[in-house]
Amino acid sequence: MTPSYDISTLRFRHELPVQIRFNDVDVIGHVNNSVLLSYFDLGKVSYFEAMGYKGVRSGDVDLVIVHVDVDYMVPVFMEDDIVVRTKVLSVGNKSVKLVQMLYDRRNDRVKCVCHTVMCGFDPSNNTSLPISDEWRKRIHAYEPDLA
Amino acid sequence: MTPSYDISTLRFRHELPVQIRFNDVDVIGHVNNSVLLSYFDLGKVSYFEAMGYKGVRSGDVDLVIVHVDVDYMVPVFMEDDIVVRTKVLSVGNKSVKLVQMLYDRRNDRVKCVCHTVMCGFDPSNNTSLPISDEWRKRIHAYEPDLA
Amino acid sequence: MTPSYDISTLRFRHELPVQIRFNDVDVIGHVNNSVLLSYFDLGKVSYFEAMGYKGVRSGDVDLVIVHVDVDYMVPVFMEDDIVVRTKVLSVGNKSVKLVQMLYDRRNDRVKCVCHTVMCGFDPSNNTSLPISDEWRKRIHAYEPDLA
Amino acid sequence: MTPSYDISTLRFRHELPVQIRFNDVDVIGHVNNSVLLSYFDLGKVSYFEAMGYKGVRSGDVDLVIVHVDVDYMVPVFMEDDIVVRTKVLSVGNKSVKLVQMLYDRRNDRVKCVCHTVMCGFDPSNNTSLPISDEWRKRIHAYEPDLA
Repeated sequence: MTPSYDISTLRFRHELPVQIRFNDVDVIGHVNNSVLLSYFDLGKVSYFEAMGYKGVRSGDVDLVIVHVDVDYMVPVFMEDDIVVRTKVLSVGNKSVKLVQMLYDRRNDRVKCVCHTVMCGFDPSNNTSLPISDEWRKRIHAYEPDLA
Repeated sequence: MTPSYDISTLRFRHELPVQIRFNDVDVIGHVNNSVLLSYFDLGKVSYFEAMGYKGVRSGDVDLVIVHVDVDYMVPVFMEDDIVVRTKVLSVGNKSVKLVQMLYDRRNDRVKCVCHTVMCGFDPSNNTSLPISDEWRKRIHAYEPDLA
Repeated sequence: MTPSYDISTLRFRHELPVQIRFNDVDVIGHVNNSVLLSYFDLGKVSYFEAMGYKGVRSGDVDLVIVHVDVDYMVPVFMEDDIVVRTKVLSVGNKSVKLVQMLYDRRNDRVKCVCHTVMCGFDPSNNTSLPISDEWRKRIHAYEPDLA
Repeated sequence: MTPSYDISTLRFRHELPVQIRFNDVDVIGHVNNSVLLSYFDLGKVSYFEAMGYKGVRSGDVDLVIVHVDVDYMVPVFMEDDIVVRTKVLSVGNKSVKLVQMLYDRRNDRVKCVCHTVMCGFDPSNNTSLPISDEWRKRIHAYEPDLA
């Protein structure tokens, strides 16, 4: 899933500051690699809510993560001022692809980049579903430049 | 450590909004009891920084928790708008006592109350220390009404 | 909730080894105080399952934590060989009281002691319930010496 | 980083059972995607220790993760009996590539596959280093079939 685009040229409409917790940081002094995935989750929840979707907070989730690809470029430290930026790259019949980055506002550095593939999900029987028309509409309304 | 005071009459100078993460919430739909302790840690770090102490973020920690006493009064949910309020109750030779609460701004409810005892700590050999004069000064400067 | 008994004389029927994770340990090199509560949760789930209760793993939880009181006596380190020991101290109409300890088998030290009060819980409306007769029977069958 | 091999033919020398915690599971009932990365960390620490490396537990870490690629194939549930299997795929001058899987022993299903790239790391100044000869020797001694 190596990107076929220059990530520095992407324009992100959605950005969320991340509140770093004391125990996010491991004994090396870096925010742990697994914790960084929860930062990307923060971004996804907020991004989908910005599209008008309210189900996440009530546990009514109908998209699930099937793949992530993460580049850990620079460690995240406790004292960083991190925002997570989120953008849908494409919507297909069966999946949505997103790109996200953790960006340090103190020094304008990209710390970490995550590409995620999500698919539709039926929580009643834990099976995958096509991407619903409702999601397709929400996404195109929020990201009008999407191909 | 049952409080000998009416907690509703306490005035908190320090308050920090808490960013709830998707995986803070367990299968019951409540923020897990152990995760709530990390919310109180968020409050402590920010409170001590508001006193001018910068060591926490660099890992130079010279106070450690020796006791907590937590009342889980109302579950915290993903959609809550939670702040953590923090206040030192007393400073002795060997320990500092704090009271903290999680407060939901959407409905003015106290969700959870935590009393903590911290003591001085020498990280070079993992032993306890008396509370330093520096900490005593910082705390009295920030909480002038403290007995 | 200071114990009115000598904890060193308690006999624990239930013991579970704890698998420590790399990111349980914070920048000071100690397992974080909030993570230790998840070790006590591991003990509770396994203890209640040993009584024949299978609901926890399926998310069908009908006891919730309303109070914890934790003594952090000695830090837990990554290299420790920790077990969590769990025992019900008493069952009342409205609550169950448990005592738990984290014990390091490498050096026979008690690292941390937790007292917990749990009450019955109705997940359909997030309200408390009396302790059911079913729980009372399970507990007395597992802890026959209980008063 | 799509594998150019059939993962079902890989023989893993190293396997570690994973202790699932109550709050690993999110409101959907699945172990959260970020928590699964901490399961892979459990495997890496244990794998490198099986090679005779003892630094991890003391915080003396000289390999860091620079890339992960994760396929979430089947959700992990609280009641699963999960092991994490770990294997180095290749060692270059600058990086080590590992493959890991989460495998459910109850039903012989692969739940999740993770490919990781690690590089050498100098904790004194947070910069990358070549893979040391010591690591190269340890890895080839433990995985004699490695090209």
